[in-house]
Amino acid sequence: MSRLLAIAAAQLGPIPRTSSRGEVLSRLIELLRQAANRNCQLVVFPECALTPFFPHWWIDDQAEIDSYFETELPNPETQPLFDEAARLKVGFCLGYAELVCDGEQTRRFNSTVLVERDGRIVGHYRKVHLPGHCEHRPGNPFQNLERRYFEPGDLGFRVFSAFGAKVGMLICNDRRWPESYRMLGLQGCELVLMGYNTPRHYPEYPETDRLADFHHRLSLQAGAYQNGMWVVAAAKAGNEEGVDQIGGSMIVAPSGEVVAESTTLRDELVVHQCDLDACQTYKQGVFNPRSRHPEHYGMITQNIEQ
Amino acid sequence: MSRLLAIAAAQLGPIPRTSSRGEVLSRLIELLRQAANRNCQLVVFPECALTPFFPHWWIDDQAEIDSYFETELPNPETQPLFDEAARLKVGFCLGYAELVCDGEQTRRFNSTVLVERDGRIVGHYRKVHLPGHCEHRPGNPFQNLERRYFEPGDLGFRVFSAFGAKVGMLICNDRRWPESYRMLGLQGCELVLMGYNTPRHYPEYPETDRLADFHHRLSLQAGAYQNGMWVVAAAKAGNEEGVDQIGGSMIVAPSGEVVAESTTLRDELVVHQCDLDACQTYKQGVFNPRSRHPEHYGMITQNIEQ
Repeated sequence: MSRLLAIAAAQLGPIPRTSSRGEVLSRLIELLRQAANRNCQLVVFPECALTPFFPHWWIDDQAEIDSYFETELPNPETQPLFDEAARLKVGFCLGYAELVCDGEQTRRFNSTVLVERDGRIVGHYRKVHLPGHCEHRPGNPFQNLERRYFEPGDLGFRVFSAFGAKVGMLICNDRRWPESYRMLGLQGCELVLMGYNTPRHYPEYPETDRLADFHHRLSLQAGAYQNGMWVVAAAKAGNEEGVDQIGGSMIVAPSGEVVAESTTLRDELVVHQCDLDACQTYKQGVFNPRSRHPEHYGMITQNIEQ
Repeated sequence: MSRLLAIAAAQLGPIPRTSSRGEVLSRLIELLRQAANRNCQLVVFPECALTPFFPHWWIDDQAEIDSYFETELPNPETQPLFDEAARLKVGFCLGYAELVCDGEQTRRFNSTVLVERDGRIVGHYRKVHLPGHCEHRPGNPFQNLERRYFEPGDLGFRVFSAFGAKVGMLICNDRRWPESYRMLGLQGCELVLMGYNTPRHYPEYPETDRLADFHHRLSLQAGAYQNGMWVVAAAKAGNEEGVDQIGGSMIVAPSGEVVAESTTLRDELVVHQCDLDACQTYKQGVFNPRSRHPEHYGMITQNIEQ
């Protein structure tokens, strides 16, 4: 048996701080059209795909910070992407900064929506594993202020029925944690979609800079194999406002094999026809849930002080 | 800072069914001496290192099954290994089949002991994740009867203070499960020791045969990186009684990099001087326990029916 779904990871090159939302939208729509021309049914865009990755800068003015957020999706500025996708009958997964006005409280998340081929939003995820710091580190060449600008996601790791598959979403640093994949895998997830902004330089641990591509790849491959899932990862790549970011957008099979991979640091599609039934070899075989021993995993759900 | 510990993974080639315990012991002692000559302080032997891997055969006679087990360690047959190790001041980790007479109940485990440089047993582990099946599958070219001959380990994943490090042990199929590494990592483990017997052919899922080495390597690398631990893995390699087993004994750094690896399917030492302080880059950095979100990991400790 095979259940085929053609998917594109839509890597983006850098987005200059001077770009308007309209200019970014044009790039997303161009990638969407290319994907439709290649008969893709689903396009995965990066984390915070509508703007440059503003957590790399210290910003004092809350109004300026909030200018990078969306208060609803679609909104007038992003409606053309939703319209074109519905017209082309291509679904997509879009990372964005989400601002929620919840009564008197304003909340901000690093989020993703999943949009079906008819334009309906059918899935929503808020990034759980925020990396970085809250405070200004002026001695660093750039900041990583996700813990200042966002709060950790409160929706957990959910699986959505869409595109004839069981679909989960992760964002950037989530992908390094085996717990993220396992939570999805235990719900039968067949396809994990994710975007990321990953600087090549880690100011606190520069000895790992040379390994940035390797660690990215290793995390995706292990998560795919250990849960028998397809993993589609889309980068914001290249030098964005002075910050070098890795590319390496890729599609990883449930075997852990990389089956398609980007070759530039610019806007680029990475396409593969994914057989969702290929998950079963691993889900029923070596990683059959009946072979787990949760009675010995207790510490994993505890807060551990070290 | 650096805390250096020279370690050898002692790969074994096949052990014929006709080998006596004494003949096997001679091979282990020879590897131990070679390791001492290379200034190693710790030698890791494979899973069930004293015998051929008998779960590959259906055996009816319980007395014959039990002839592959040890009722205590050291015993008269294995004492020479313990004596020579203490004389050389080299510690070791040894996989064996463990028979426990617990009152009227007899219990059997797939186990490992950790022996310090003075000959004392300082750690003990019983394999949690038993692969394979209980029933005879005569249509298969060989059996995988660990679930018939052993019960799952009842000691959990513990960390021992030994060799100036925090040391954990896993056995074979445990290494594919991220939960195994995480349980050790959450206890501050710096060094994971494991042996394995891994057939190249998976009778139920032959489409994965070509990936046996890749999946082995991927699992070790991900476990090391995602917990900032050294991983030392020793194979029983080559064709043992008609069953082809992978080699690939290796030492993996906390970065996930393979720093030493076997090049044969025979008795062979794989040696590296491991800096235990190299763990801190990952334990304090990207995988700092404070960055976990166990409030979203709940299903991992539940029994999930799919």
